[in-house]
Amino acid sequence: MSDEITESSQTVAAGQLRAFIERIERLEEEKKTISDDIKEVFAEAKGNGFDTKAMRTIIRLRKKDQAEREEEEAMLDLYLSALGMI
Amino acid sequence: MSDEITESSQTVAAGQLRAFIERIERLEEEKKTISDDIKEVFAEAKGNGFDTKAMRTIIRLRKKDQAEREEEEAMLDLYLSALGMI
Amino acid sequence: MSDEITESSQTVAAGQLRAFIERIERLEEEKKTISDDIKEVFAEAKGNGFDTKAMRTIIRLRKKDQAEREEEEAMLDLYLSALGMI
Amino acid sequence: MSDEITESSQTVAAGQLRAFIERIERLEEEKKTISDDIKEVFAEAKGNGFDTKAMRTIIRLRKKDQAEREEEEAMLDLYLSALGMI
Repeated sequence: MSDEITESSQTVAAGQLRAFIERIERLEEEKKTISDDIKEVFAEAKGNGFDTKAMRTIIRLRKKDQAEREEEEAMLDLYLSALGMI
Repeated sequence: MSDEITESSQTVAAGQLRAFIERIERLEEEKKTISDDIKEVFAEAKGNGFDTKAMRTIIRLRKKDQAEREEEEAMLDLYLSALGMI
Repeated sequence: MSDEITESSQTVAAGQLRAFIERIERLEEEKKTISDDIKEVFAEAKGNGFDTKAMRTIIRLRKKDQAEREEEEAMLDLYLSALGMI
Repeated sequence: MSDEITESSQTVAAGQLRAFIERIERLEEEKKTISDDIKEVFAEAKGNGFDTKAMRTIIRLRKKDQAEREEEEAMLDLYLSALGMI
């Protein structure tokens, strides 16, 4: 027996559609849980006196290698200096 | 007299850099003003009893032509029906 | 022996900071993996002929209960009709 | 003569709704134009050899006052040093 549903000349395999939808919903739920976990770690760090803004910058910088980071920093310092900001 | 600033073998035309930065800042300010205006129109519509959520959907739909809208609606109805949601 | 590092009158527990940072990085990695999994399921659904745009709408709608959905749909239809769009 | 449209016990002032929608659409168009202008200025700066990534950082930093910027920089340096990144 098929679970195909037809409407205005279109047909859809309802069971297969439902399976895809439910897989995505489970993954989105997991993703949400991890996002909440990340927020909790930041909250715990803050509770321990850490500056979460600086932490976020550190995490962003750690994704780059040392050379890339230094090059960017040098360019930024040049611009800051050109504009009289340092 | 030049306004070039050099740091670690790099040189930057400070005046030109400042001009670009200030042009962008003025444009960002204008953009911010318009974003605030949009919020105000929605608030005014809400104050007149309109449903701003439905309004947002309408605005999104008006960007599509009638045929595209109908095709999407038909597909959605097919899926809703396949999943027993309508 | 302490791992405290001091700079300009500030002190930071380096080991604790590193532990927080690394926990967050691991969680962000997991989150990235799940985001990729979600993309893959959509790609697989698309490969099986499903309309992923309609699927996304379905997933969004399934988060609301039937009554809420119907109310929103009625309001939207009213507006569409008022603007001659249906 | 009224332009009220009724559907399932709801009534909507069609003309007023249309006026709100069109005001928002005009504002969104203006906003889009300004966003495009900003992109163009960045492209022009890049064409003149400027580093747009550093420019974006500069623009972000200029929104803060000197004291705030220095405090953030000091905290970041402390963390970078604690993690052996500088």
